Amino acid sequence: MLKRYLLAPGPTPVPPEALLAMAMPIIHHRSPDFLPVMDSAKKGLQWLCQTKNDVLILCSTGTGGMVGAVNNFFSPGDKALVINGGNFGERWTKICKAYNLGVEEIKIDWGYAVKPEDVENALKKDPSIKGVFVQASETSTGVYHDIQALASIVKKYDGTILVVDAISALVAHDLKMDAWGIDVLIGGSQKGLMLPPGLAFVGVSEKAWAFAEKATSPKFYFNFKKERENLAKNQTNFTSPVTLIIGLNECLKIVQAEGLENAFARHARLAHATREAVKALGLEMFTKESPSNSVTAINAPAGLDGQEIYKNLRVKYGITTAGGQGHVKGKIFRIAHLGYAGTFDVITAVAGIEMVLKGMGHPIKLGSGVAVAQELLMA
Amino acid sequence: MLKRYLLAPGPTPVPPEALLAMAMPIIHHRSPDFLPVMDSAKKGLQWLCQTKNDVLILCSTGTGGMVGAVNNFFSPGDKALVINGGNFGERWTKICKAYNLGVEEIKIDWGYAVKPEDVENALKKDPSIKGVFVQASETSTGVYHDIQALASIVKKYDGTILVVDAISALVAHDLKMDAWGIDVLIGGSQKGLMLPPGLAFVGVSEKAWAFAEKATSPKFYFNFKKERENLAKNQTNFTSPVTLIIGLNECLKIVQAEGLENAFARHARLAHATREAVKALGLEMFTKESPSNSVTAINAPAGLDGQEIYKNLRVKYGITTAGGQGHVKGKIFRIAHLGYAGTFDVITAVAGIEMVLKGMGHPIKLGSGVAVAQELLMA
Repeated sequence: MLKRYLLAPGPTPVPPEALLAMAMPIIHHRSPDFLPVMDSAKKGLQWLCQTKNDVLILCSTGTGGMVGAVNNFFSPGDKALVINGGNFGERWTKICKAYNLGVEEIKIDWGYAVKPEDVENALKKDPSIKGVFVQASETSTGVYHDIQALASIVKKYDGTILVVDAISALVAHDLKMDAWGIDVLIGGSQKGLMLPPGLAFVGVSEKAWAFAEKATSPKFYFNFKKERENLAKNQTNFTSPVTLIIGLNECLKIVQAEGLENAFARHARLAHATREAVKALGLEMFTKESPSNSVTAINAPAGLDGQEIYKNLRVKYGITTAGGQGHVKGKIFRIAHLGYAGTFDVITAVAGIEMVLKGMGHPIKLGSGVAVAQELLMA
Repeated sequence: MLKRYLLAPGPTPVPPEALLAMAMPIIHHRSPDFLPVMDSAKKGLQWLCQTKNDVLILCSTGTGGMVGAVNNFFSPGDKALVINGGNFGERWTKICKAYNLGVEEIKIDWGYAVKPEDVENALKKDPSIKGVFVQASETSTGVYHDIQALASIVKKYDGTILVVDAISALVAHDLKMDAWGIDVLIGGSQKGLMLPPGLAFVGVSEKAWAFAEKATSPKFYFNFKKERENLAKNQTNFTSPVTLIIGLNECLKIVQAEGLENAFARHARLAHATREAVKALGLEMFTKESPSNSVTAINAPAGLDGQEIYKNLRVKYGITTAGGQGHVKGKIFRIAHLGYAGTFDVITAVAGIEMVLKGMGHPIKLGSGVAVAQELLMA
């Protein structure tokens, strides 16, 4: 028996309370049974997103929320400014192009964060830009982009909205939708919210709803105006993914019991301990600045294949993490500390990395990284 | 305590085997753990759809599969022939229009089935029609359209494909994708397949794949060519809804143990018993011809509100069924016998209807419909 540990940046482990709630018999989404379930989910998501805005619930992966953000607020020919600093920034560009938006990119070397002044300059130079698209946490590089700074810039432009993919950031990072002025905030179920994959969440500001009035991109499945009308009645436009929404309420209860500030602090603490422990092993962070609280991206030591490290963790020790994406495949590996994650997940990750690297012939003093993590995670 | 019974045409009850399998800890969709799960689901769906074609698995409701069928095989301006005999036929028209297809409708009075010769004549008159869109089981009216006859017509036209919404028909009706020549066959999880909502299935013929090569409708989330490439590797394009796919395998095992022919026969038997029992109560079928095996649509007796019947079943007896949709709301109510359904679900439905109607002052001899169902369902 090889016991399994899931330490990947999504899907993340689901707490037993949610697993059991989702194993209950199905209820019907158009019956009154479902209305309080949806009402509770709706309010919980507003609390989580720190907003009075509608937070739509979609039956899709997080990418569905991204696609919906493009085709509900924009029209063919509209100008998009994409902050592209990784695999998911790249995805914004692909979606915008698929819907015939004009795309201008701020290309950022992987591992670095956007400079807010570059966005300010781009908007000054071309105020016809209608949308600025960014990731809060860019999962492929482990970088957190400064959403507060970007929001403070974009809100000065009446004709521009800020669209934030917060799929891997929600619950792990403080994202004050209303206070900062984020226009569109996208989440997914299988990350900080500790659920199976299958739900996307989209918070929409009043400024963004005004954009929706003029948007002509074709849409049917992701139709935010119809979702908004349904949400007001505690419904979704099409069949509601009832089990996942029931699970969502369980997970929201867990986060509410912890408190938002405590949840952010826990993620920050786990991320910090992971980074310091790994650095103590002589490894180099792939993330050069502004590291995310969700995932830590680590360079494979010279001469070792990052995919082999990832593979050995899984095959020899039952620990599922993530390798590198795109052009850094083989060069890095990534460890998540996201969602249903605690002290001994970090200890497990660091101990596993030590054992794998030593097994691959890399000079490692077993326990040395673990001790650093222990020190930082002492209660 | 009011014990609950779910007899709605989706979501339908989930068997305990699937509920428990879905309550197991999450596995990662890009890890080798998931590959055999997906491989098994893929092969099981091919068996269920009676096809050697790819059957794509999408993270969406069934409507997502319908939208994908429109934007993956067609381009703006293409001509669509929609068989519109109910709420879901109407949905085909709306989706086609959302993607700027030219729509010609064969309008059918609710409760009636399409006459295949009308489709033949429409295609003869206008061979530029690229797609014929139909429901196998039109859930809003309880009508089964003759898919075999339609397929035999459409396959004579090289420039036309047949797109079948089989969301509420799969498992309940024999649909021989390859033998009959269905080009696109769409299913959903929360119907005959006995799963929670959240998955769509799309079987695609080689003829349809050739259409996909030329289709220019914008797409990103529902990108069938990318899904096909991923399916070949036992993956999905975006994060796989792992729990639902694990549940799918459990439900497929149940259907495989029963056998396809037996599953169709069971649904036919339950549907027949429901209809005969209800007729014995002096009620009139809303469905005038070609009744579906999935759902029985019944006229409310003169002077009674169909929504009240539906509501009394739920509130007084804990039985969730369905009311009427669109212009027949209040005039009909609908009872499903779909998926994880057996003899005593029919008995429950008929007994509940008797008790509700009697309670509403309608002349009913208690047990008289039940006896008819018993007679027909004796082992």
